[in-house]
Amino acid sequence: MFIMDEIRENTAGAIMTPEFVRLREGTSVREAIRAVRASGLDSDALYTLFITDQEGRLKGTLEMRTLLAAPGDEAVEALMDTAFTAVTMDEDQQEAAHLVRKYDLISLPVTDREGRLVGAIGVNSIVDVIEEEDTEDFERMAALVPGEGGYKTSSVWTLAWHRLPWLLILMASSVLCAKLIQSYEQLLLLSALGGVVMSNIPMLMDTGGNAGSQSSTLIIRAMALGDMTARDDVLALGKELLTSLLCGVGLGAVNFARMLLISRDTALEAGVISLAVCLTVIAANAIGCVLPMLARRLRLDPALMAGPLLTTIVDILGLIIVFALVTALV
Amino acid sequence: MFIMDEIRENTAGAIMTPEFVRLREGTSVREAIRAVRASGLDSDALYTLFITDQEGRLKGTLEMRTLLAAPGDEAVEALMDTAFTAVTMDEDQQEAAHLVRKYDLISLPVTDREGRLVGAIGVNSIVDVIEEEDTEDFERMAALVPGEGGYKTSSVWTLAWHRLPWLLILMASSVLCAKLIQSYEQLLLLSALGGVVMSNIPMLMDTGGNAGSQSSTLIIRAMALGDMTARDDVLALGKELLTSLLCGVGLGAVNFARMLLISRDTALEAGVISLAVCLTVIAANAIGCVLPMLARRLRLDPALMAGPLLTTIVDILGLIIVFALVTALV
Repeated sequence: MFIMDEIRENTAGAIMTPEFVRLREGTSVREAIRAVRASGLDSDALYTLFITDQEGRLKGTLEMRTLLAAPGDEAVEALMDTAFTAVTMDEDQQEAAHLVRKYDLISLPVTDREGRLVGAIGVNSIVDVIEEEDTEDFERMAALVPGEGGYKTSSVWTLAWHRLPWLLILMASSVLCAKLIQSYEQLLLLSALGGVVMSNIPMLMDTGGNAGSQSSTLIIRAMALGDMTARDDVLALGKELLTSLLCGVGLGAVNFARMLLISRDTALEAGVISLAVCLTVIAANAIGCVLPMLARRLRLDPALMAGPLLTTIVDILGLIIVFALVTALV
Repeated sequence: MFIMDEIRENTAGAIMTPEFVRLREGTSVREAIRAVRASGLDSDALYTLFITDQEGRLKGTLEMRTLLAAPGDEAVEALMDTAFTAVTMDEDQQEAAHLVRKYDLISLPVTDREGRLVGAIGVNSIVDVIEEEDTEDFERMAALVPGEGGYKTSSVWTLAWHRLPWLLILMASSVLCAKLIQSYEQLLLLSALGGVVMSNIPMLMDTGGNAGSQSSTLIIRAMALGDMTARDDVLALGKELLTSLLCGVGLGAVNFARMLLISRDTALEAGVISLAVCLTVIAANAIGCVLPMLARRLRLDPALMAGPLLTTIVDILGLIIVFALVTALV
């Protein structure tokens, strides 16, 4: 009915099982129960029965509990759910997980493109898919190359091998920060603001990075849970901009007060750093929100765009913002 | 049988339902099927039947599929699984999720401390628990106060409110970095290494932060999936130290080559920064691994210890390491 090597990884076709009970139209409840007992199957996929027509096309689904509660001579067509949920074999496994979660399914039918029933995915497989996809997202967001197998069974070589690629890429990109600082070193030495800028760079970069991580994590998680489609992008960007304005102004104000009252910096010093904090937070939120959206449109995993990659971009932006402010004032 | 306000949040008791079929010992298969049909229940919790004794204590579980495949006059005791898995009401919901995942359950029985059956948790509730717990971990690891409801339904005020507390705490703690840099400013101005150290601080801090995030994410995820118990802590720490040695030496070597060959820094400059990178990565991995372990022993959520809090600690450590190296050489 289908060729195995056509089934791509992480699709519904790759995780479905051929373990299900198929009933023809015209079957009675009594015959259906007999078919279940005769199937000899032993899995959760048994708890949803599928009714197909002569060509094998899926016409309806029937929960075992509905079957058991019905009189023996009733026809299954009278009981079956014709507004059923199904996926095609080439659908992403994450989409299958969304449907099982949304409709509280025990078994999700899988069809080919012509609507012919080819398999079923039990809810216990979906539990594994959810854990696996979430683990991948956690790993991508922490700049890890996702690995097979658990932490305990991975060797030290494997662990290091999954960390080094991103560490190297990110180290190389943060060298750009070093170049930026070097090229402004003379300016900073000349400016009265030099000392205060240099010492506040880590705070500025950390705060921007944190704000960006917050945005990107919320957006990526909403996408992964299927709560945010591409149509929600504009609304989400609007929300992030307003939120970042609140956070940016709040943090800037607190920092201004701190520098003026506790660190005894001048109003100019406090003003420049605080304005830089505010602008960096706004930029960080906007980027943290836009990067995962872009990734999804390019059919990349949005989780790749969070965490460290974002942090490096935000670091560079934070430096550009503060150096631009100093340059404008010198 | 139990008092509602004694049920704590996020426990098995809080997510169980009273929807299940209880069979007394001595029931036949035919009577059991009749009990299921008469129950009128309509949920996935129906697919596992529970057999209790006179005092209501759980004696065994019976899958609906086993029941359906058995002859009508067989006694349920002969079919039931006496090596069943159950949780008590005050067990954490995450533990319930581990058991359902591990044993591919459709319904997990919940008992009181005396072993009396009080409820059941269907696998579809467990799917929601998993998504909810993972979302909380994602949020905690990105320095967000976990919120109720999805991104789309949250107001801008709520979004900002869940971000500001950690942003403020982290901004305050990274002020420590500023103080550290200020107190070493004179030393750096005197030292020939001053320029190269100042410009490489962001790279050093980013690399340390990334390495620490990698460790903590892997450890926290392994804990959340139930793959790592407290007994594995020593083994994991050993693994992290070896892995960090590989990563630290690798990154230090690449950085040494880069500074010497591309940036045309002196061997001393390249050596100091590269040694600082190596030591910071090792320290970051160790801390990224130990913090979640400590959190678990203190009964805090390990996810609180990842990401930004870790980053700030690692930033400070990185600065201390590089300043100590410079001081030793001046």
